[in-house]
Amino acid sequence: MLRIIDFMPQSSAGAAATIGEFDLIRRLTDVLGVDHASDRERRALVGIGDDCAVFPGDSAAGLLTADAMVDGVHFRRGEIDWYDLGWKALVSNQSDVAAMGGVPEFALVTLGLPEGFSPVQVESMYRGIRAAAEEFGGEVVGGDVVRSPALFISVSLYGRAAQSSSGEALLLRRDRARAGDRVAVTGPLGGSAGGLRALAEGRTSEDAERLKRAHFSPRAKVDAGRVLAANGVECAIDVSDGLLSDLSRICESSGAAAEIEAGLVPFPAALEREFPTEWLDLALTGGEDYELIVVAPEETFGRMGGNVGGELHVIGDITGPSAIGEPLVAVVDLDGSRFYADRAGWDHFRG
Amino acid sequence: MLRIIDFMPQSSAGAAATIGEFDLIRRLTDVLGVDHASDRERRALVGIGDDCAVFPGDSAAGLLTADAMVDGVHFRRGEIDWYDLGWKALVSNQSDVAAMGGVPEFALVTLGLPEGFSPVQVESMYRGIRAAAEEFGGEVVGGDVVRSPALFISVSLYGRAAQSSSGEALLLRRDRARAGDRVAVTGPLGGSAGGLRALAEGRTSEDAERLKRAHFSPRAKVDAGRVLAANGVECAIDVSDGLLSDLSRICESSGAAAEIEAGLVPFPAALEREFPTEWLDLALTGGEDYELIVVAPEETFGRMGGNVGGELHVIGDITGPSAIGEPLVAVVDLDGSRFYADRAGWDHFRG
Repeated sequence: MLRIIDFMPQSSAGAAATIGEFDLIRRLTDVLGVDHASDRERRALVGIGDDCAVFPGDSAAGLLTADAMVDGVHFRRGEIDWYDLGWKALVSNQSDVAAMGGVPEFALVTLGLPEGFSPVQVESMYRGIRAAAEEFGGEVVGGDVVRSPALFISVSLYGRAAQSSSGEALLLRRDRARAGDRVAVTGPLGGSAGGLRALAEGRTSEDAERLKRAHFSPRAKVDAGRVLAANGVECAIDVSDGLLSDLSRICESSGAAAEIEAGLVPFPAALEREFPTEWLDLALTGGEDYELIVVAPEETFGRMGGNVGGELHVIGDITGPSAIGEPLVAVVDLDGSRFYADRAGWDHFRG
Repeated sequence: MLRIIDFMPQSSAGAAATIGEFDLIRRLTDVLGVDHASDRERRALVGIGDDCAVFPGDSAAGLLTADAMVDGVHFRRGEIDWYDLGWKALVSNQSDVAAMGGVPEFALVTLGLPEGFSPVQVESMYRGIRAAAEEFGGEVVGGDVVRSPALFISVSLYGRAAQSSSGEALLLRRDRARAGDRVAVTGPLGGSAGGLRALAEGRTSEDAERLKRAHFSPRAKVDAGRVLAANGVECAIDVSDGLLSDLSRICESSGAAAEIEAGLVPFPAALEREFPTEWLDLALTGGEDYELIVVAPEETFGRMGGNVGGELHVIGDITGPSAIGEPLVAVVDLDGSRFYADRAGWDHFRG
């Protein structure tokens, strides 16, 4: 079995002539470690330059996810380090696989490059992609490099679901929340949004820098997802849009209503120090922390003890089935008052 | 098992608010036939709206490929019908799977949409994607919709390799051309490039329109690829960049040199009529016909008889191993003269 990197050459109408694609591919292939692969596990079946990446078949259930980042929309070219951009583009996909309890296996990276890009920057980006692949899984086996007026990175990721000893797929789904379940999260929330805010406001304190790192270098909770799935948890989602929004999604998919206590939501200490009046809003609604929201019966959490592949903070409960016209998520605020959220947002519910 | 469409919602920093993504997703989901799936085979395991698409594991080798199309680079928004754009975006990926001898199984479609797009147009595009999926395989199981200054469609496709009766993967690879093999193609070449030229030159004859259809509505040779792989063929590539360029790729990967006879290359009759002086150049170098170039020993072709899932035209031979500094592909022109090509191009060799 060969380890492969397969950047499919684009049609001649495309990027090749203009951006020196073939040279670029060679350089990126280097960055992704093809030449240094002899001492690593070799997994894919067909090597560089064929029409498709080929990988061994698997009796486990497969997972497929895709996520794209566009310059000026999801990031600003001048504000993010290219290495971080690559890291984050893959992590956002790995996080989707983690949120299903699966393990990332193979990634395809499609890159849209404007004229006049710097190959050094793009290489740096691929180093970030490679680092995330080494950290959380998902070897880059192919993709496409095209010319584009706007820089974009479109990643798709193939993963393998966790399996029971009898070979059954163990999946963390969004539609498995049941009345009486507890709601937990795998780590502090709001750091990424705090970092983005700090960046926008030009903050440079030590805490601000810490939050920026949370924004630029999120981690995919692959280990936690796998452990949770193996221990009978059936319901989770990753925090990509924000706790209230993503928990609303679970409730919507499950036909359930949830209540969480704001005072139980974990957050980075730096967030409260840097944003003394806004930290809770950031923790409740900030996106891209890529922690998991986990929903399971009390006894399932109990059975696992502390062994959940990381932290686990219970923050609330599934209170019952959802009702038409009723908000999906209730929040008990720090002062004991209540406000409500649904998937469309939360501000207009706040009283 | 459920059939699924899973357009992962993008982060709140992204497209949702601006382009009404959720409504759009619902509409596209309709277009892709989720609501009408009850009477069709249901294959994927996890339904709409989870973090990943989930599909049953497969003991056959998996194939992964990705291809993107960007407005102003690979197409011009005003010139291509949205339906055709969707069709072509998926076909270019299906063709990569066909060129490995595999069957498309699951597709992810990531769409970058500028502000002010028309949902009607985008729906039309998804109808084109759906039609191609129904024609050549590769159910759309997910993707991403993001805002982008430039319209782009980034598709990735998962496929299954053909298998021998003993379960071994039967792959059409680029690096399997051997001296003495014959070179064949599965159908007429140059039609797509002729259509593009006709479009650029504002031609509107019946032949010009025929060629434009070849450009906008190519077909993926999935059936041919599967039949070829099942019959012992081991080497193929699809014509995405042009016969000479793509055959050079086979030669480069295989360390082989090829010779083809221009007079044997099949082309659409409309091409010769519409471009009486340029038809051969277009047939030899035009891209995006998505026919397969097939390389195999004479006896392999012989064994198959006419049963190759379509046409098969022998156009030349693998003449020997490649030599450093020597061109990879020699062409015997209509007048018996020779010219040469390599992957970088061919013009500069001519004459």
